[in-house]
Amino acid sequence: MSFEVPRKIRFADVDPAGIVFYPRYFEMINAIIEDWFDEGLGYGFDQMIRKDGFGVPLAHIDVDFTSPSQLDDNLVFHLDLLSVGRSSIKLEIVAYCGEVLRLKARPVLVFINSKKHAPASLPDELKTRMLEYRKAS
Amino acid sequence: MSFEVPRKIRFADVDPAGIVFYPRYFEMINAIIEDWFDEGLGYGFDQMIRKDGFGVPLAHIDVDFTSPSQLDDNLVFHLDLLSVGRSSIKLEIVAYCGEVLRLKARPVLVFINSKKHAPASLPDELKTRMLEYRKAS
Amino acid sequence: MSFEVPRKIRFADVDPAGIVFYPRYFEMINAIIEDWFDEGLGYGFDQMIRKDGFGVPLAHIDVDFTSPSQLDDNLVFHLDLLSVGRSSIKLEIVAYCGEVLRLKARPVLVFINSKKHAPASLPDELKTRMLEYRKAS
Amino acid sequence: MSFEVPRKIRFADVDPAGIVFYPRYFEMINAIIEDWFDEGLGYGFDQMIRKDGFGVPLAHIDVDFTSPSQLDDNLVFHLDLLSVGRSSIKLEIVAYCGEVLRLKARPVLVFINSKKHAPASLPDELKTRMLEYRKAS
Repeated sequence: MSFEVPRKIRFADVDPAGIVFYPRYFEMINAIIEDWFDEGLGYGFDQMIRKDGFGVPLAHIDVDFTSPSQLDDNLVFHLDLLSVGRSSIKLEIVAYCGEVLRLKARPVLVFINSKKHAPASLPDELKTRMLEYRKAS
Repeated sequence: MSFEVPRKIRFADVDPAGIVFYPRYFEMINAIIEDWFDEGLGYGFDQMIRKDGFGVPLAHIDVDFTSPSQLDDNLVFHLDLLSVGRSSIKLEIVAYCGEVLRLKARPVLVFINSKKHAPASLPDELKTRMLEYRKAS
Repeated sequence: MSFEVPRKIRFADVDPAGIVFYPRYFEMINAIIEDWFDEGLGYGFDQMIRKDGFGVPLAHIDVDFTSPSQLDDNLVFHLDLLSVGRSSIKLEIVAYCGEVLRLKARPVLVFINSKKHAPASLPDELKTRMLEYRKAS
Repeated sequence: MSFEVPRKIRFADVDPAGIVFYPRYFEMINAIIEDWFDEGLGYGFDQMIRKDGFGVPLAHIDVDFTSPSQLDDNLVFHLDLLSVGRSSIKLEIVAYCGEVLRLKARPVLVFINSKKHAPASLPDELKTRMLEYRKAS
């Protein structure tokens, strides 16, 4: 099961060359991760970060940009879990416009205690919910 | 020879957890590439993109985030050329705060004809200037 | 009749003090104007700006920020037309969280020919559709 | 005495119509206010907001956009104090490219206790330093 979010390309996303300014893609990637925690896992950033003092900073990301996106394109972002460890969460996020792949990203997040800025153990219940989004191999 | 740009972490860069919101890092990475074309290579984006109809979209990037940055941190970004082909440009960009590595990015740009959105041959003179920034191995 | 758009406050919108970083409000204001042209008026930015060579830059804006917004707040933006002239469009945009007013903005847009960067006459049909959103006095 | 900051228009600031996307202007306005507190007043946001628990949210702003800015334009922002009260700070910020006025903004900030989100009294010493930037009438 993938977690999916549609995202239309807006005026604010597009550069003078008429295509998506790529730092905006990282805002979209961040947004789908935020939505996944909130709607997919039932543990939103307000609760996790502000109230509980945890965080999920990015440790690594690699991205292939396979074709450009333009104003008013209707993308769909798909998020799958690749693996989850004690503290680390490996995801795959792809974005399509119709049948055309626009980007494929593999972010690695680390679950941390924000005060100590040190890795923390993911609660078992949260891990279990994450595993519902594990990519079929 | 590296191309270097200092960058102070501003209020606008920092998230509620008090550390840099990572899409801002991609704006910083984009900015040093823009500065390199302008000041390092003498071929600014206004000339290249708006007047000459070329572009340098990102084809791939991978980034390691090795330690978090906070408000008022004074980073220095360093850009080196890893290799340059007919149309592709591989870079390494690192950011330090003092002696501490904050991130290491390896972007691959493609020199394109914007109208056709197809790869174009890098002018020899531009390639030659790029090679002045080749990383010593 | 108001044009309305819901907007949840996201992690990317919020500053280290835990409230919306106000430049993000101007992205939200721009987004509701973009949505109004597209969905309310049937004349989206892609058609108007990219294909037809017009634009609607901001000539003036004043905004009252009446109470702060926080992460996960569910705002609703309401857009009304105050008046429309040969080229100028005066709007009122308010944002509420439940019953609480968060901001009240009065932007003035100018319909221009982008190439000349000079005011252009609004097409009658577009004006007529705009007037459906005129604020009841 | 005005507080002045140069600001080059970058690729990230410019929209598909080739002119500054106006939410970026509000980031520039925010940045000169941040620089003024840090360099002009000697009371940077890290100290004021993160360590001392104060804030300076925007209560009101009005802006006239008098002519458009383009990629690679070299703007200079000028900040003057219009007046300062117990908690409120009225500023005038203008941006020029050469002799040409690009925008004139009048922001009103409120000095607050962040925890209570209530107005706080500006320290006398800070007020005194602000008054050095009062606009000559």
